Amino acid sequence: MGRKLRVCVLGATGMVGQIYLQMLADHPWFEVSAVTGNTTVGKKLVEAYAGKGDVPRKYWDLEVLPSDPAKVDADLVFSCLPTKAARELEHKFAEAGFPVVSDASANRYHEDVPLIVPEINPEHLDAIEVQRRRRKWDGFIVTTPNCTTTAFVMPLKPLLDEFGLRHVNVVTMQAVSGAGYNGVPSMAILGNVIPYIPGEEEKVELEPRKILGSFEDGGFRPAEVPIDATCTRVPTLVGHLAALTVTLSREAKLEEVAEALEDFRGLPQQLELPTAPPRPIELRREEDRPQPRLDAGSNDRSGMVVHVGRLRKGSSERTVKFVSLTNNLVRGAAGIAILTAELLKATGRLG
Amino acid sequence: MGRKLRVCVLGATGMVGQIYLQMLADHPWFEVSAVTGNTTVGKKLVEAYAGKGDVPRKYWDLEVLPSDPAKVDADLVFSCLPTKAARELEHKFAEAGFPVVSDASANRYHEDVPLIVPEINPEHLDAIEVQRRRRKWDGFIVTTPNCTTTAFVMPLKPLLDEFGLRHVNVVTMQAVSGAGYNGVPSMAILGNVIPYIPGEEEKVELEPRKILGSFEDGGFRPAEVPIDATCTRVPTLVGHLAALTVTLSREAKLEEVAEALEDFRGLPQQLELPTAPPRPIELRREEDRPQPRLDAGSNDRSGMVVHVGRLRKGSSERTVKFVSLTNNLVRGAAGIAILTAELLKATGRLG
Amino acid sequence: MGRKLRVCVLGATGMVGQIYLQMLADHPWFEVSAVTGNTTVGKKLVEAYAGKGDVPRKYWDLEVLPSDPAKVDADLVFSCLPTKAARELEHKFAEAGFPVVSDASANRYHEDVPLIVPEINPEHLDAIEVQRRRRKWDGFIVTTPNCTTTAFVMPLKPLLDEFGLRHVNVVTMQAVSGAGYNGVPSMAILGNVIPYIPGEEEKVELEPRKILGSFEDGGFRPAEVPIDATCTRVPTLVGHLAALTVTLSREAKLEEVAEALEDFRGLPQQLELPTAPPRPIELRREEDRPQPRLDAGSNDRSGMVVHVGRLRKGSSERTVKFVSLTNNLVRGAAGIAILTAELLKATGRLG
Amino acid sequence: MGRKLRVCVLGATGMVGQIYLQMLADHPWFEVSAVTGNTTVGKKLVEAYAGKGDVPRKYWDLEVLPSDPAKVDADLVFSCLPTKAARELEHKFAEAGFPVVSDASANRYHEDVPLIVPEINPEHLDAIEVQRRRRKWDGFIVTTPNCTTTAFVMPLKPLLDEFGLRHVNVVTMQAVSGAGYNGVPSMAILGNVIPYIPGEEEKVELEPRKILGSFEDGGFRPAEVPIDATCTRVPTLVGHLAALTVTLSREAKLEEVAEALEDFRGLPQQLELPTAPPRPIELRREEDRPQPRLDAGSNDRSGMVVHVGRLRKGSSERTVKFVSLTNNLVRGAAGIAILTAELLKATGRLG
Repeated sequence: MGRKLRVCVLGATGMVGQIYLQMLADHPWFEVSAVTGNTTVGKKLVEAYAGKGDVPRKYWDLEVLPSDPAKVDADLVFSCLPTKAARELEHKFAEAGFPVVSDASANRYHEDVPLIVPEINPEHLDAIEVQRRRRKWDGFIVTTPNCTTTAFVMPLKPLLDEFGLRHVNVVTMQAVSGAGYNGVPSMAILGNVIPYIPGEEEKVELEPRKILGSFEDGGFRPAEVPIDATCTRVPTLVGHLAALTVTLSREAKLEEVAEALEDFRGLPQQLELPTAPPRPIELRREEDRPQPRLDAGSNDRSGMVVHVGRLRKGSSERTVKFVSLTNNLVRGAAGIAILTAELLKATGRLG
Repeated sequence: MGRKLRVCVLGATGMVGQIYLQMLADHPWFEVSAVTGNTTVGKKLVEAYAGKGDVPRKYWDLEVLPSDPAKVDADLVFSCLPTKAARELEHKFAEAGFPVVSDASANRYHEDVPLIVPEINPEHLDAIEVQRRRRKWDGFIVTTPNCTTTAFVMPLKPLLDEFGLRHVNVVTMQAVSGAGYNGVPSMAILGNVIPYIPGEEEKVELEPRKILGSFEDGGFRPAEVPIDATCTRVPTLVGHLAALTVTLSREAKLEEVAEALEDFRGLPQQLELPTAPPRPIELRREEDRPQPRLDAGSNDRSGMVVHVGRLRKGSSERTVKFVSLTNNLVRGAAGIAILTAELLKATGRLG
Repeated sequence: MGRKLRVCVLGATGMVGQIYLQMLADHPWFEVSAVTGNTTVGKKLVEAYAGKGDVPRKYWDLEVLPSDPAKVDADLVFSCLPTKAARELEHKFAEAGFPVVSDASANRYHEDVPLIVPEINPEHLDAIEVQRRRRKWDGFIVTTPNCTTTAFVMPLKPLLDEFGLRHVNVVTMQAVSGAGYNGVPSMAILGNVIPYIPGEEEKVELEPRKILGSFEDGGFRPAEVPIDATCTRVPTLVGHLAALTVTLSREAKLEEVAEALEDFRGLPQQLELPTAPPRPIELRREEDRPQPRLDAGSNDRSGMVVHVGRLRKGSSERTVKFVSLTNNLVRGAAGIAILTAELLKATGRLG
Repeated sequence: MGRKLRVCVLGATGMVGQIYLQMLADHPWFEVSAVTGNTTVGKKLVEAYAGKGDVPRKYWDLEVLPSDPAKVDADLVFSCLPTKAARELEHKFAEAGFPVVSDASANRYHEDVPLIVPEINPEHLDAIEVQRRRRKWDGFIVTTPNCTTTAFVMPLKPLLDEFGLRHVNVVTMQAVSGAGYNGVPSMAILGNVIPYIPGEEEKVELEPRKILGSFEDGGFRPAEVPIDATCTRVPTLVGHLAALTVTLSREAKLEEVAEALEDFRGLPQQLELPTAPPRPIELRREEDRPQPRLDAGSNDRSGMVVHVGRLRKGSSERTVKFVSLTNNLVRGAAGIAILTAELLKATGRLG
């Protein structure tokens, strides 16, 4: 398929940056041409990571650049910048002509920025044209959701399509990696649960409505699904687990629901994109799965699967309950951004 | 107040038995006269506990007896027997004339056995007379709820009384001590969450309806409150945390709800029972509390408090959300049984 | 290389059994023809493992047999039986003509049973002949060491050969998997260290002397190396870490010691056995490695590497200090037994 | 005993500061008159602690002052400043006339600064006069050891006195609280052991020699005891555990050693200082104690006890092995400084 696209990872020296590098190390379409950082600018990547993780050997000698469009040579930019830096820098890259795929929250809620889960709303990418026109940019910004949103929005899609959604209650049990390497002190979380994550519930109640909504006449129309979320931090390393109680618009047999989940496929599966798992949702039939430590998958396509389990009826005829588990670093961050970039390329939106 | 009542703890050699002994060591009304066990019959109590916990020194030399009414000399019997043993043995003690206060599940759901949370339904103790008549017993059986039910049923009571309850959704994050000392292997739970606890959700959806219901004309009438529960195990030691979404029967301002919770008092508070906390519910105003490791309280009255926090409005006008934390060994097991026995005594039902 | 040898795993339904099956699933020389168990006899293997782990799909339908030589059809038997069962059963298999490779302790210390670390003492396999003659067996028993011994005996070998050993002090920090799936209750170890493992220090002080000793004139002569061990349990899942202070027989420069460790190779490396890692010892130069969670390796050849780090001089000229990390399930149990079987085959001792 | 001395805690807003405040809240001799901080200067103490711990209610409204002698009104100053701040600030307080008791490392190794374990070397306080003369200070600085040194130096004292010490090997398993509230990220330590703590081994090999040495003719003479240390971080909250192998100068029966440990008392016990535990060393006879989570004690005199267990003979006649556990926040930091201040007062060195 011709030469690989050269990609730059903005904010490559954090925990999610590391996952990007692992997932891109053997990617068939993309190759890493540049990485940027902040306090480690000028160092080699291997030094920037010292004591905090392992980066593929082929990238050890990459020099950490400043996050400046003038310094970066790439066909595409991935951003895993911290929120504040993302707010200041991503639009500069878009303005300078770079396609930007960002898993930061800074631009997610803008009325001309698509918030993409490739299996759910690929048609939202049409908003790119509106964005470019309005902002007079050569490049553009596409965003992916908060890692916790990805933990449960996927199974909502087939339920919405087949049965309609009246209400969603979700309680999350989130891994410490979701807060970054230094985000959760061990003194805070060892043998503990913290029933509060700043800003998380707002995102988790807002984002699925945009994702599950439509893009029509140049604007987003959110889905009308009220969501009640409680977000907690638990002492797990990787894998956000969500316990859901979903009220459907109509009665449904449990086996119908199971089928809807198992049969769900999206455009990435049709297009056989490199990072797309053959089935986006895996329905576990064992009574005690999925479990974060056993089932979150690793830093490859296996980490892109959303694991659903404990499917059962609720207290009303229209209610179903289940748990949903997502690898917050892969499906929740680096992997979903890479899959989105693959979708951009496969639909002719890159170069 | 005259001599202390002599009490026997059935199944005293397990983890909950140990809490009973710690809480009874200086009790003003009760003194431990006997303990029973199973595999350790004939040993001294200190030997029975070797390697599994600490028991007050004054009880070290108590001999572990078999759980046989003919061998036990006591005015009152506490049972923390495993379910199967409880099913076989508790009624023998009642038949032999002992008042039995049990935190086992074996007899909880019988139509003539009260299931008591002393602050909520002390009037259910009237069922004792029905029970004795029907079964021709000199003694009787009174039960206390599953430790997870106690984690959230307390705040439901003032909400029911003030605003009415339409629906309750509860997701629990339960400590490993809830399964007994050997109940959860470290291989299963280190760095993990297990989204399933056998039999737990059924209990948790059933018991609050009996507790919050009425006892009229010789029978229990359950409250008509549908409950949806998901129960999970997390790597905490003590303290079951529950995340609730409660739909009230009418709109309520948040501050009204807060007041209803904070002002709630029950009969144990009026009677100033020794183990009754001054306030059964403590409403935490910090944004990140209660937390199991910090707030579950210890093996005394402090462990009897139910900690509620993160009170906030839900997605509809009639919905409120909060988290609730209970010490599963104290408020959830030994302490609630002792408080129930105190209530029995204070209401003239013991000797 | 002709047809594969058919192997039977005795005690295949425990945690180590599971590792055998994963490591043998694609083995070039061996194929699993039978598995035995105890309480799950008659079940399919997938049922025997329910809730305790994952076994390769190709073995799901294997029937669990009793550990009876008359019921088993195989060319070779691996034993990961519990000690007591091993004591009763392993010699029956040897008597019935099976070569037995055991990681159980039952037969390790007998004067005619080799205790093998393939890289260190392959010549001890000559004891098989003595064993067969003396016991009049068609088969034989070969053993591998306690998983904690394997955590530090490997680096002792090149130190002994190059510099001589005067004294070894070792303190271990052992993972919970070393005690079996149900071995360490979470109540015991969450947020804790237990400074005692029954029987472990005796094994750890005894076994290296046999392994590092010689087999001459039909008998084992242990190495004269006094060892002081303290064994502790820590809340890690996999990977036994050992902190060593080693007094050499002569002064040595640190870089000489480093070279001796890095250059060490054994017969398995020369023979390029399938499960032999290219280097048995990996010397880490980072100041904070190896760490159990990051470096123990997985259930393949990577788990066979012994990771040594923090090499530094001690308080005397002849003392060196370092830490050593081993995957207790692979290098410490299933993997070392498989490597020993490969050595038996490559040296013509099988069939 | 007359009015209480007014004390100031420098660096009161960290984790150790919190322990000082808890231990001083009801102290018979001292009362907190001032606290200092850095980034929280000007705030109330309760705000400075938000989300990081609980401080006694009586101190909630104390204003956090800058660490400036001119701003502080007190008879005595405790310093738990970070190393760098301690280096810059402690001598300013001493110069300004304050007695300073510091658990920071900044001044520990100076030739005229006593490094005190009150039970071991109270006579080193005579160095204060040398210090004052040499430096022309009205006040003075007294230091207490690194929290890990306190984990094992106490039992060395009676062994040195009774049997002589030839060599000490120590491997520590240290709690995360030893690094401060934000010191160890959960991503680093969950399910892991880190076999390296920057700078720790150097301190641990150096400090006991000063403490166990003498102060003669105006100078310190260190004890000639070579120490080999390996320091590791484990996922425990409080309690540094050390595994020791000690070579004595002469043979000793195990029971003699046990007696020497149990009979040991120091000047604080003779003077019955308020924070002195009746016995500085508790010898545990159970085979699996002490354990950090069970035995470290709490923020009072119980946390001042050093727990020794697993006493046994080593590989030579003159070698003994044992483990030693200390509450790193109390005996290792705030408590030992308070006890040192009590000793200063009781020996007439304060005001």
